[in-house]
Amino acid sequence: MEMQKLTYLEFQKFVSEAPIAILPIGAVEAHGPHLPIGTDNYLAERLSNKVAEKIDALVMPTFSYGQVWSLRNVDGSINVSNKHLIGILTDIGKSLYKSGIRYFIIINTHVGNTNAIKEAARNLYDLYEDLKVLYFIYPGTEKIIEEVRESKPIPGGYFHACEIETSYMLYLAPEYVKMDKALDDFPDLPEDFHYTPTPWEKITDTIVLGKATLATKEKGKKIIDVAVETIVKVIKNVQRQQRRDQND
Amino acid sequence: MEMQKLTYLEFQKFVSEAPIAILPIGAVEAHGPHLPIGTDNYLAERLSNKVAEKIDALVMPTFSYGQVWSLRNVDGSINVSNKHLIGILTDIGKSLYKSGIRYFIIINTHVGNTNAIKEAARNLYDLYEDLKVLYFIYPGTEKIIEEVRESKPIPGGYFHACEIETSYMLYLAPEYVKMDKALDDFPDLPEDFHYTPTPWEKITDTIVLGKATLATKEKGKKIIDVAVETIVKVIKNVQRQQRRDQND
Amino acid sequence: MEMQKLTYLEFQKFVSEAPIAILPIGAVEAHGPHLPIGTDNYLAERLSNKVAEKIDALVMPTFSYGQVWSLRNVDGSINVSNKHLIGILTDIGKSLYKSGIRYFIIINTHVGNTNAIKEAARNLYDLYEDLKVLYFIYPGTEKIIEEVRESKPIPGGYFHACEIETSYMLYLAPEYVKMDKALDDFPDLPEDFHYTPTPWEKITDTIVLGKATLATKEKGKKIIDVAVETIVKVIKNVQRQQRRDQND
Amino acid sequence: MEMQKLTYLEFQKFVSEAPIAILPIGAVEAHGPHLPIGTDNYLAERLSNKVAEKIDALVMPTFSYGQVWSLRNVDGSINVSNKHLIGILTDIGKSLYKSGIRYFIIINTHVGNTNAIKEAARNLYDLYEDLKVLYFIYPGTEKIIEEVRESKPIPGGYFHACEIETSYMLYLAPEYVKMDKALDDFPDLPEDFHYTPTPWEKITDTIVLGKATLATKEKGKKIIDVAVETIVKVIKNVQRQQRRDQND
Amino acid sequence: MEMQKLTYLEFQKFVSEAPIAILPIGAVEAHGPHLPIGTDNYLAERLSNKVAEKIDALVMPTFSYGQVWSLRNVDGSINVSNKHLIGILTDIGKSLYKSGIRYFIIINTHVGNTNAIKEAARNLYDLYEDLKVLYFIYPGTEKIIEEVRESKPIPGGYFHACEIETSYMLYLAPEYVKMDKALDDFPDLPEDFHYTPTPWEKITDTIVLGKATLATKEKGKKIIDVAVETIVKVIKNVQRQQRRDQND
Amino acid sequence: MEMQKLTYLEFQKFVSEAPIAILPIGAVEAHGPHLPIGTDNYLAERLSNKVAEKIDALVMPTFSYGQVWSLRNVDGSINVSNKHLIGILTDIGKSLYKSGIRYFIIINTHVGNTNAIKEAARNLYDLYEDLKVLYFIYPGTEKIIEEVRESKPIPGGYFHACEIETSYMLYLAPEYVKMDKALDDFPDLPEDFHYTPTPWEKITDTIVLGKATLATKEKGKKIIDVAVETIVKVIKNVQRQQRRDQND
Repeated sequence: MEMQKLTYLEFQKFVSEAPIAILPIGAVEAHGPHLPIGTDNYLAERLSNKVAEKIDALVMPTFSYGQVWSLRNVDGSINVSNKHLIGILTDIGKSLYKSGIRYFIIINTHVGNTNAIKEAARNLYDLYEDLKVLYFIYPGTEKIIEEVRESKPIPGGYFHACEIETSYMLYLAPEYVKMDKALDDFPDLPEDFHYTPTPWEKITDTIVLGKATLATKEKGKKIIDVAVETIVKVIKNVQRQQRRDQND
Repeated sequence: MEMQKLTYLEFQKFVSEAPIAILPIGAVEAHGPHLPIGTDNYLAERLSNKVAEKIDALVMPTFSYGQVWSLRNVDGSINVSNKHLIGILTDIGKSLYKSGIRYFIIINTHVGNTNAIKEAARNLYDLYEDLKVLYFIYPGTEKIIEEVRESKPIPGGYFHACEIETSYMLYLAPEYVKMDKALDDFPDLPEDFHYTPTPWEKITDTIVLGKATLATKEKGKKIIDVAVETIVKVIKNVQRQQRRDQND
Repeated sequence: MEMQKLTYLEFQKFVSEAPIAILPIGAVEAHGPHLPIGTDNYLAERLSNKVAEKIDALVMPTFSYGQVWSLRNVDGSINVSNKHLIGILTDIGKSLYKSGIRYFIIINTHVGNTNAIKEAARNLYDLYEDLKVLYFIYPGTEKIIEEVRESKPIPGGYFHACEIETSYMLYLAPEYVKMDKALDDFPDLPEDFHYTPTPWEKITDTIVLGKATLATKEKGKKIIDVAVETIVKVIKNVQRQQRRDQND
Repeated sequence: MEMQKLTYLEFQKFVSEAPIAILPIGAVEAHGPHLPIGTDNYLAERLSNKVAEKIDALVMPTFSYGQVWSLRNVDGSINVSNKHLIGILTDIGKSLYKSGIRYFIIINTHVGNTNAIKEAARNLYDLYEDLKVLYFIYPGTEKIIEEVRESKPIPGGYFHACEIETSYMLYLAPEYVKMDKALDDFPDLPEDFHYTPTPWEKITDTIVLGKATLATKEKGKKIIDVAVETIVKVIKNVQRQQRRDQND
Repeated sequence: MEMQKLTYLEFQKFVSEAPIAILPIGAVEAHGPHLPIGTDNYLAERLSNKVAEKIDALVMPTFSYGQVWSLRNVDGSINVSNKHLIGILTDIGKSLYKSGIRYFIIINTHVGNTNAIKEAARNLYDLYEDLKVLYFIYPGTEKIIEEVRESKPIPGGYFHACEIETSYMLYLAPEYVKMDKALDDFPDLPEDFHYTPTPWEKITDTIVLGKATLATKEKGKKIIDVAVETIVKVIKNVQRQQRRDQND
Repeated sequence: MEMQKLTYLEFQKFVSEAPIAILPIGAVEAHGPHLPIGTDNYLAERLSNKVAEKIDALVMPTFSYGQVWSLRNVDGSINVSNKHLIGILTDIGKSLYKSGIRYFIIINTHVGNTNAIKEAARNLYDLYEDLKVLYFIYPGTEKIIEEVRESKPIPGGYFHACEIETSYMLYLAPEYVKMDKALDDFPDLPEDFHYTPTPWEKITDTIVLGKATLATKEKGKKIIDVAVETIVKVIKNVQRQQRRDQND
């Protein structure tokens, strides 16, 4: 259910029965010549909708501005600092709690947001005993990714506008993909890449980290289905556990 | 043009010709029994699109979380603090500038955001000599509003889920309006209302400040058309002026 | 009663009977060739004293440093940032509360301070249930100003060192006015003036926004009397209301 | 010369010849039964005026709100935090510099402000090579104090509403002193007083730390005269030195 | 070379030849019944010394206070917030740069510090073009760990007071290990462990996450040797690269 | 007892009997040609150990990074800002309290840290009623210093790498002293030295403020013994007092 189309009275009613809010969060960021700069936002939003099809929950308006340090110097990227992102996510959590929400689900598709989300979740943890904040970034997909991928992964687990992410888009938001522009690029990472701040314009001219040409809708579907399943399962188990705890 | 559906290369090309970005900013906020809590976001987004139809500009993803102090205690409202809002809007402006944008147009529909936007604009003013930040909240509409409105205004110029705002929605986002739930409510403002912090749950049970039942699509169209016109005119004149200045 | 001339024991006694403190707040700011840069401070202080003549209250030392963004580049202006102003006003309110004050009246004469004062008042609202913060900037004077003014207003309601403000000074602090230097200046505001940060040195060379030569003591008295009356009335009604609430 | 009574044009003229601004800074703080809570403010203001009689300089409006941690729990004290005080003093210094001031003299009478002033001065030192910030708190008076005082000092050099400070008031602001209420109180300081945060309500009921009854105008004059002299001498020598440096 | 035992003149001389500083950073944190709470500090310090044996570099005093959110509720843990840790590490980097250091090597042994270190490194990256910040946490050891470990890893890569870390201690700081207290504990991680803030007192009573009893000095040596080698190699290559860049 | 060598179980046991933690805090700072830049750290650590010999207490890992404004421009000095130092010391205090510590003893050897420590102590004072924070910087040594010193003191009480501090090192950390490099330097302090920010590179080329050549181990011992005694006495009396208070 799209949260913002409800009136506040409908919101109240929904929350009294299912106090779950899902925040899709992505970023505006350069994603190679074949993917839109809103890739992460489209993915976060549609992934959230898929989850909300299987579980009674309110899908919030997408938070479309993320921490994009690595690609901040490439045109079309918008970067917000961890500090402000932490602050605003914490604020949002406080309001949700006040409004009756007890499960704040953050569905993130942009690695750069991870630390800010974790810190905001910890802030909220300290504030409210009975608010559960869950944050996900394609959870449970390690195995299925290994199965479907044909190209080898970039060392360090980075992926960007590659076989995998392009497949996600082909599945979830194909209307924005220009497969004829897709290309393959395996940048030579400098030896210190994992040990020092390295803007990505130093390692890639194409803003692609992998073999985008290998992407297919089927691969995307396989992985995304697992992610959705994992998210749904975790939420349901957490709810079950909470109910058990309350009955004790 | 929707910004986030462009690839970064298309973004570059567009910006090299028309370095204008429009940020719609609203809020999630209770809006009476007949309007959705996303009212301000729908309005900001669609108003921005109307402007972008008349001027070459990129419409950014809506910033959907605003400063909602007055209604923060009513379920369905999400409130973010001025401090973090200022920070994140400043961050966004920095990235836009780095990406080549020279006109950062903020189309706001939520009064609570005004101060934060102004402060962020001043921050950016101090940083970049050649970035023009323009912020609008239904500009140039005082006269037309006076003409079309049938109910008397609330003292102090407040309006919320009333004849005027409901008319905007009937024009710009009618699919989310439930006119059968619309009602009229003229709260008795306490004498110190304008002089002391007053959460709105103390002045209204309905979260309507005016006569929503008088709203019509036609009224909405008349006012919004003026707002769009004003915004377009100001932007065009500013561009003309800048060009003149550069030629001098 | 001037607060700072009391001993702490006299302070305690006074507050136990009348827990009201008035903070005059103005700014140091360029005010044309005929008004002193302390204009706002003189006005705030003397307006506060007039209020204190009609109501038992302690007038605090004037807070003489305000947010002066618009004129910060003109010599003789002193600008403090919103952030620090909010912080210090909140601190002051905390101490007043601890000292027994239950009505914290902020009498402001400088528009630039408005946002900071409002934010500080909200901070205090969240901290103390039984502290009433009231902030005023010439309240209730719209009608009387319209009656007495002979010059037309600047669009947007700006006024500065003009017919109105100079009249205030002629009434409240005539010894600092040099009417022989008074002049008239109606700057042509650029079309985007209300929509973009615009330092006032770009719109005026004289630092006068209106017809200072039309100022008279009588006009000043008429308006200021209404402001004083309004402030006194609001405070008294608030006190009456609080007493009623406590008796319930 | 009182800064705020000048027009901005007179300010400009003055500063072009004598770019010196003096900021008196004190505090609102309980000062025993015989001294007003504005003691530090009166002293700062009048001491500043005495300095300005001997040197061409602009005396700014008194900054009347200081860091009053030790007495913050005693009614009539107003405490602002170091953080905000540092911020606002730095802001003020920035504006003064922009306005042409090159000597920013801070005349402080309240020990609690010392750290904030020092930190603000260091901030300004890092910003402007050619701004001299000088801060004084009764400088050069150690010897004369030892000569005139009849009571023994409190260990640790604390003095408050005592023989010395009361003498200052008898000289500089006698109209606010109630010598018939003066009393003597030598609190037994706990052994850990200098090593742990200790609010003064734990060490004194009278808010007097010494023998106020021994105060005389003559003692005050002797000490204050030395303080004035020292301040004037330091400023003059600094100016001389700067001129020498510029001629080199 | 221990940095702090040098005089400033010796420091200058050393840096002019080898502008490399190594900061060991760990934490005080509960580490099971057999390891000291200073485990991370001992490891960071001795690992740093091993690196400094192979490369001319100054080893700075250990920064012994880290971000210990997960174990902050267990006695003997000291937790500092990311915000302050980021601030202080950035400050340290600024001073090192001013002192001539051009390679700031951060040898970290506590996962909780990772984000703060990364953010500080990015701050410094933005400030200084020619300062290289390198941060390491047992780099290059994935393969060798897999080879030597006999117990299976905890899902998610967590390790704490386990076979691996205890082996490090047996190799680097055996005098602090009480192997007779070592124990094995494979906590059942709750399903949402990786998706929600989870203090570790909820998952373990022993504060051991693995099989500490399997630890041996030999295992420790094998892994640590690889870590040292990796660090040394990366530093040397970076230096070589910088020299090449400068010659171009 | 060295805190960090304990396991968390040993820590718990110790604290249940003696809830006292000592934090040595110094700085890395240039100290003339004869003393190491870690002088303050060595002194803080060893002074703390001496105290811990006489009183059951845990000596924490030395906090080696202090506020070094005055010498921050001299190579080998590391300066951290008050703001971050205050933050991190407050964090440490919070964790200690949570771990059962009720006496947090800060043994400081670097004057630049004084303000930050005081502010952190005040923060903790406001948080915990039953946490005693005591901070010491060579307490009780005024008299003995006067007795043993042969050189005259620098006006204003500054001392640095001089007869006194070098004597401390000769007693507490002689292995790091190079007496053959010791020298005497009495800088001519500029007249405004105490009244304006003055980096010490402007007053000394040697980074010695006094007669280092007069230093002896005996002098050091005499003074340090008094400092240790004073610290021990204050702690014991405070404990006695607390016990009395609890029995009342």
